[in-house]
Amino acid sequence: MQFLSDNAAPVHPKLWEAMRAADAPDTPYDTDALSRELDARFSAMFGRECAALWVATGTAANCLALATMVDPHGGVVCHEEAHIEMDECGAPGFYLHGAKLLLASGAGAKLTAGSITEVLSGITRGVHQVPAQAVSITQASEYGLCYAPDELAAIGALAKEHGLGLHMDGARFGNACAFLDMSPAEVAGPVDALSFGFVKNGGMGAEAMILFDTEKADMIRFRRKRAGHLQSKGRFLAAQIHAMLDDDLWLENARAANEAAAIIAQAAGERLVYPAQINELFVTMSAEERAAVRAQGFSFYDWDDTCVRLVTHWATDHDHARALGKAIASL
Amino acid sequence: MQFLSDNAAPVHPKLWEAMRAADAPDTPYDTDALSRELDARFSAMFGRECAALWVATGTAANCLALATMVDPHGGVVCHEEAHIEMDECGAPGFYLHGAKLLLASGAGAKLTAGSITEVLSGITRGVHQVPAQAVSITQASEYGLCYAPDELAAIGALAKEHGLGLHMDGARFGNACAFLDMSPAEVAGPVDALSFGFVKNGGMGAEAMILFDTEKADMIRFRRKRAGHLQSKGRFLAAQIHAMLDDDLWLENARAANEAAAIIAQAAGERLVYPAQINELFVTMSAEERAAVRAQGFSFYDWDDTCVRLVTHWATDHDHARALGKAIASL
Amino acid sequence: MQFLSDNAAPVHPKLWEAMRAADAPDTPYDTDALSRELDARFSAMFGRECAALWVATGTAANCLALATMVDPHGGVVCHEEAHIEMDECGAPGFYLHGAKLLLASGAGAKLTAGSITEVLSGITRGVHQVPAQAVSITQASEYGLCYAPDELAAIGALAKEHGLGLHMDGARFGNACAFLDMSPAEVAGPVDALSFGFVKNGGMGAEAMILFDTEKADMIRFRRKRAGHLQSKGRFLAAQIHAMLDDDLWLENARAANEAAAIIAQAAGERLVYPAQINELFVTMSAEERAAVRAQGFSFYDWDDTCVRLVTHWATDHDHARALGKAIASL
Amino acid sequence: MQFLSDNAAPVHPKLWEAMRAADAPDTPYDTDALSRELDARFSAMFGRECAALWVATGTAANCLALATMVDPHGGVVCHEEAHIEMDECGAPGFYLHGAKLLLASGAGAKLTAGSITEVLSGITRGVHQVPAQAVSITQASEYGLCYAPDELAAIGALAKEHGLGLHMDGARFGNACAFLDMSPAEVAGPVDALSFGFVKNGGMGAEAMILFDTEKADMIRFRRKRAGHLQSKGRFLAAQIHAMLDDDLWLENARAANEAAAIIAQAAGERLVYPAQINELFVTMSAEERAAVRAQGFSFYDWDDTCVRLVTHWATDHDHARALGKAIASL
Repeated sequence: MQFLSDNAAPVHPKLWEAMRAADAPDTPYDTDALSRELDARFSAMFGRECAALWVATGTAANCLALATMVDPHGGVVCHEEAHIEMDECGAPGFYLHGAKLLLASGAGAKLTAGSITEVLSGITRGVHQVPAQAVSITQASEYGLCYAPDELAAIGALAKEHGLGLHMDGARFGNACAFLDMSPAEVAGPVDALSFGFVKNGGMGAEAMILFDTEKADMIRFRRKRAGHLQSKGRFLAAQIHAMLDDDLWLENARAANEAAAIIAQAAGERLVYPAQINELFVTMSAEERAAVRAQGFSFYDWDDTCVRLVTHWATDHDHARALGKAIASL
Repeated sequence: MQFLSDNAAPVHPKLWEAMRAADAPDTPYDTDALSRELDARFSAMFGRECAALWVATGTAANCLALATMVDPHGGVVCHEEAHIEMDECGAPGFYLHGAKLLLASGAGAKLTAGSITEVLSGITRGVHQVPAQAVSITQASEYGLCYAPDELAAIGALAKEHGLGLHMDGARFGNACAFLDMSPAEVAGPVDALSFGFVKNGGMGAEAMILFDTEKADMIRFRRKRAGHLQSKGRFLAAQIHAMLDDDLWLENARAANEAAAIIAQAAGERLVYPAQINELFVTMSAEERAAVRAQGFSFYDWDDTCVRLVTHWATDHDHARALGKAIASL
Repeated sequence: MQFLSDNAAPVHPKLWEAMRAADAPDTPYDTDALSRELDARFSAMFGRECAALWVATGTAANCLALATMVDPHGGVVCHEEAHIEMDECGAPGFYLHGAKLLLASGAGAKLTAGSITEVLSGITRGVHQVPAQAVSITQASEYGLCYAPDELAAIGALAKEHGLGLHMDGARFGNACAFLDMSPAEVAGPVDALSFGFVKNGGMGAEAMILFDTEKADMIRFRRKRAGHLQSKGRFLAAQIHAMLDDDLWLENARAANEAAAIIAQAAGERLVYPAQINELFVTMSAEERAAVRAQGFSFYDWDDTCVRLVTHWATDHDHARALGKAIASL
Repeated sequence: MQFLSDNAAPVHPKLWEAMRAADAPDTPYDTDALSRELDARFSAMFGRECAALWVATGTAANCLALATMVDPHGGVVCHEEAHIEMDECGAPGFYLHGAKLLLASGAGAKLTAGSITEVLSGITRGVHQVPAQAVSITQASEYGLCYAPDELAAIGALAKEHGLGLHMDGARFGNACAFLDMSPAEVAGPVDALSFGFVKNGGMGAEAMILFDTEKADMIRFRRKRAGHLQSKGRFLAAQIHAMLDDDLWLENARAANEAAAIIAQAAGERLVYPAQINELFVTMSAEERAAVRAQGFSFYDWDDTCVRLVTHWATDHDHARALGKAIASL
C-alpha cells in the first residue's frame, strides 16, 4: 500500500484512450489540431485570454513561465521551501540564465504579502543587488496548504505595485481547486502565469503552462523549442490534457485523492503537522512508530526526524486509506 | 498519402503494449526497474560499457550529450547544415551556456577529416578564439547519407589527436544500421556519445542518450534534471525503449522504412539529388511537377527551389510508396 | 618601428593629466561627478539623448550593448569576419546567454542591406530557427573601410522594417569620423547603440558604451555590475573619456593616425588590398618581402599568406611611416 | 573627513610611477613582460606554484576563480552575508552559468566547519538538489574579522574530505595579513584560488586572481577574454600589481589602514559590534549620535538601524582618525 508519491500513480484509462485516439497522422510538434485547441480551451476555463503550451514536466513549465517575467540579472521571490528552490536542481538558474531566487519565509511554505515585502525591503542598493522581478507561489504549497482568494489578491496587489510578475506553481492545482471548491479562475487569482499540473493527477507526461500575458507566448514557444521540450509528437501531450479537461476529469481525480487523504487525516488527528487540505499529509511519527506502520505494509516518505509525508492520488484505494488511518490511530 | 516526416508516423503497437504494462506502481523519475536496466542493455548492444539515459527529444539528447565534452567557452565542430545548427533554435547555445558551433562544410551534409581539419586550422589565436572541444556528426546525415566505418575511424582518429570529444546525432541511427547492415557498434564507431533516436522510428516520446564516457553520466543526470527532462513517470519512456530493443524492433522498423524509400528511389532514378540510403529522399522537381504529384494525393516537404524531400517510416504502406514512385516516374 | 597594433600605442599625456586630477576623493563606482556627466556630454555630441556608460574593453561594450536588443534565444546578424565573431572568444554567447551570431558576407568586412536580407530570408521555419533580433556593424570595418551615410541609412531602414536593433562596433569610430570628415552623429547614423572606442586611440582602459535607447540604460547598469565591469574607482575611466572629448582630442588623435597610414598607403600603391581609409592597411607581400621589410626594423602582423596588416596610431612617428613607405615602395 | 569606503582612497604615488613607466610600447593583452612575470612573483610569495592573472575588479576575480571549481549545475557554499551573495548583482550566477550559492550562517560573517557541514548535510536527494562543489570564504570577512590558521585548516580539511574547491575572497587580504602578522601563505591557508585585492589598498583598477590549481589557469584565460576582462593594455594592470608587491607596499598600506582604524576602535570601546581587527569598524550609534558626529565633518555609511560602518584606508590621516575617535568617545 503505497503512499509515497502521486508521481507513482497509474495513468487514468481515459488518457490512454485519448492517446490511442491521437495515434493518427497529424502534423508534428505543436501544429496538430489537438495542440492548437489548447489556447481556446483554457481561455474558456479561466474566463480570460491565455496561451496554453504543453511541456513534459512541472520543472520545465515553472521555469519557462518564469522566463516571461525575469531577466537574467533579475530575481524571483519565492518561499525558502518552494519546489523551484529545493527540488529542481537549480533549473531556474539554468532557464533564467543565472537569475536568482530571493527566499522568503512563511508558515506552511506559503508566502504572505508581509514576507514578500520583507524581502523587497532589503533590496536598496541599486545595481549592487539583484532586483526582484517576479513572485512565485505554489498552489497548493509544499505542505499541502491552499491560498485563499483574499491571500492571492493581497499578493497580486503587492506584485502589481512593485511591477513584479506573479507565477503560480500548480503542480497540485487541481487538488487546490477541489479543496477550495472554487473555479480555476478563483484559485489562480491574479497570476500572470500558471503551471497547471496533470502528471500527479493521473497524467503520463504532460503539464500545461498557462500564460495570461499572451504577448509573451511567442517568446516562450521559442524557448520551449530551445530547451528541447517541443516534442515532435506533441499530439500525445495535447491528447492527455484534453482528456483531463473533458468532463472535468482533473477535478474528479483531485477530489478522489483529497478524499483518500481526508480519511487518513481524520484518523491522524493531533498528529497532523498542518491542516489536511489536499492529498498530502505530514504526520508526526517516531522512528518506532514508522517501523510499526511500515510493518503493516504501508510505504511513505520520511520527511524529517519528526514527521512523515503521506500522499494519496486519484487511484488510491480508499480501503487502503482507511487501513492506514487505522494503523495510525492505533499507534 | 503522407511523405512529410517520420515524426508523423504512428506509435508502434508493441510500444503501446509496453507502456500499458509499465502502468503499475514503481518508484518515480529514473529509479524504476525499467530505467535502471537501460545501462546494461545498451552496454550489451554496443559491446562496451555505457550509460543510457532516456530523454523526450533528440534536441535534449544531443545537447546534454555535448555537455559532457564542451565547456561554456568551447566550440563544437559540426556541419553547416547539421540539425543542431539549423533546426534546434539555438539549443546548443542554451545547454552549453554560450558555447559555439564551428561550422564545417562537406558534401551531403557529411563531415570529413579534411573539412574538420580546415576548421581546426583556422583556430590559431589563443584566447581570442573559441577553442574546438568536440566534433558532432549525424548518422545518417541531414541528406540521408551514412558514414562508413573507415570514415568514422578517420574522424575518430582526428578527434583523438586533437583531444576532441566525438558526438553522434543518431536521430535516424536505426536507418543507418539497416542500410549499412552492420552492428550498432560498427555504425557508431569511436564516438564518445550517441543520441540514439527512437521517436522517428515508431516511438512516442523517448530517445536514448548513450554515454560511453560513463564517468560523465552522473553529471548528465544532474543536467537532465536541471533541464526539466527528468520526467517523474520515466518508466513510460524506459518502457518504449525496451520495447524497441526487444527482438530488434528498432531494426525491423528501420528496414521497413528504408525499403519503402527504396521503392520510390528506384522510380525516381536520375531525379535523386543524393544516393538513396535510408528513409529520406531528395528528389528534383519543378513547381509544376510538385503540383502534379500533390494532385494525386501525396504530401511532402518543399526542400528548396530545386528539390523536394520525401520521408518514409516504419508504417509507410508500400503500395503508397509504389504509387508515389509511379507518379514520379511518369512526370 | 612598430606597426603591429594601435593597442600598443602609448597613453596620451592629457589622459594622464586627467587621471591624476581625478585622484581626489569622490564617491565610488559610477556615482562620481565625472561619471555622472557622461550622459549629457555624449547627448550633446550626438544631438540626441543617450546614456553613456564606461567599460574597460570593447568586448564588454559590444556585448553589453547587444544585450539591450537580443534575447537569449535570439540572433545577431553580423559579418563573418566581425570582431564579435572572430576575436572575442565567444563573448557574445556569454553575455547574451547563448544567443547566436548569424553570419553575413560582404566585401571588405562590410555588411550591406542585401547581405543582411539574404540572412533574414533564410529564417523561415518558426521556432525551429533562431530569430534575428539585431544587426551589428563595425565602423570602420575589420578591413578599415567606412560605411557612408547612405549605406548606414539603408541598413537602418532594413533593421527598422524587420524590428531589429542596430549596433555599431566603433573600436575605430574616431578614425572613421576623421576619414569621412563628418560629425559623430552622421558617422553613427541610425544606430541604437554604439561602442565608442578610445583605447586604440590614446586611451588606457576606458571605452564608452552609448545607448540611444535610454530606457534600456538602467538594465545595462545592472548587467555591467553583474559582469564585474563596474569598477569601484570608475572616476578614472570617466576621466579618460572626458579628456578625450575635451577639444576633440579623440578626433585629433584619429587624424594623426590616419595621416600616418596615408603616408604608407601612398607608397604601397597597387599593393593595397583595400582602399586606404583609416589607420589600418592590408598590403600584399610575399614571405621574402616581409622578411626584407622586417630586416629594416619594422614589425607588423601577418594577416594571411597573401598580405600583412599595418596599423598606425596617434603617436606613430610620421618619419617612421615614411621609412616604412619607402621600404615597401622599394620592394 | 571621509570614512565611507576604502574604494574612495587615492591611488598610491608609486602606482602612478609604475603605470607611467609601463607606458612604453609592449605587446598587447597579457603578453607583455610585466604580465608574464606575475606567475613567478606570486609563486615566490606563496611558496607554491600558482598562476596569477590580473582583472579590473574583485567581482571578476571572485567569479572567474570560482569557475575553476564549479559546474553550471553546481553550488558554492558561502556565508549568507558574503559579498558574492549580497553585493555583486548575481555575478556568480552569470559567470557560473546558473550555479547556486548555498548559504551558511556564522557569527561575524565567518563560516565554520560546522556551518558548512550543516549546509552539506541538507544535500541528500541526489539529482533533485544542487550539489555543493566549492566553499568560498572571505578573508577578512564582511565584518572585518580574520580567519586564523586553525580555522582555515579545519575548513580546508572539510573541503578536501567532500571534494570541494576552496576559494578565498581577499578583497582585504592585505589587511588580514597585517592583522594576523603572518605570511600570505599562512593567511591564505589551503585555498585553491584567491582573489588578492589591491584596489581598496591603494590601487586604481587591478586585482590579482591567484590560481593554485595551475592546470585550470588556461581555461580561465579563455574565460577572462570571453568576459571582456582581457584588457588590451594589460601592462598597466600588471604595473600596478608589481608596484604593490615591490618592497611589500601592499603590506605597508594595509598596516597604515589598520592602524588608523585601531585609533578609532580604542576610542569606540564598548560601542564596537565586532572586535577591531582590520580597517573596517562597526560601531553602535543612534540616529542622534550619527547626526552629531556628521555635524563635525565626518562621513560614513549607515550599516543598519543599530550601527554605522567606518572604513579607513592607506591614506587616512591619523589625525582625522583621532578626531573621529574623540568625537565618538564624547558621545
